[in-house]
Amino acid sequence: MHRSRLGTIVIDCHADDAGPAAEFWSRALGWAAQPLAHPDDANYRELATPPSEVKVLVQAVAHPSRVHVDIETDDIDAEVARLEALGARRVDVGQGDVSWVVMADPDGNEFDVLRPLPKETELAR
Amino acid sequence: MHRSRLGTIVIDCHADDAGPAAEFWSRALGWAAQPLAHPDDANYRELATPPSEVKVLVQAVAHPSRVHVDIETDDIDAEVARLEALGARRVDVGQGDVSWVVMADPDGNEFDVLRPLPKETELAR
Repeated sequence: MHRSRLGTIVIDCHADDAGPAAEFWSRALGWAAQPLAHPDDANYRELATPPSEVKVLVQAVAHPSRVHVDIETDDIDAEVARLEALGARRVDVGQGDVSWVVMADPDGNEFDVLRPLPKETELAR
Repeated sequence: MHRSRLGTIVIDCHADDAGPAAEFWSRALGWAAQPLAHPDDANYRELATPPSEVKVLVQAVAHPSRVHVDIETDDIDAEVARLEALGARRVDVGQGDVSWVVMADPDGNEFDVLRPLPKETELAR
């Protein structure tokens, strides 16, 4: 049986640069913001939430601002199939060829299904 | 000095009834869903997240589906002033006369500032 869980709250901010948006949310929520380790992830900042807390990412996006959740799993195909059986569907939001799957709940809330993100703020400790 | 923290992820579902939406998210995330105690809160279902986890609410709404976060505080006026100084602003989304304040971050993500919600699923244990 595969596993899954609520992984991350992603605050998508319509901005060219994730820095100012991450600075706002860092100060608003009281957790330091830091870039992710991989250069491909320049549009993201991770907030240093405690290990027991859900992860929070701030992302600079070209689409309108919104918030979405990520579901982490060790088996994306099985998790997508499970969620489809519950009434979710795959959606194309122009994500292209990425390693995660974009889905929408029965009422249209979009979310992502992906492999667990390393918690960079834990790795850095 | 007042206190505040990330309190709740609210999954707003465009639906007449919160039941089916809560059932989806309950099964998707693996936490039981239950109504809140107060009859005025019939549009909400709370997921029974562990005490150490952020709260998750599913809400039936008339506006399009989206996800938003709630910031909890013991002093709403002071917290709103603090967040305004960081660049957030109060917004009118037709909320009327409610006990919380609706704000938007500098990029337009709306969120609420409110007194801490009791965790009904803890009270019920």
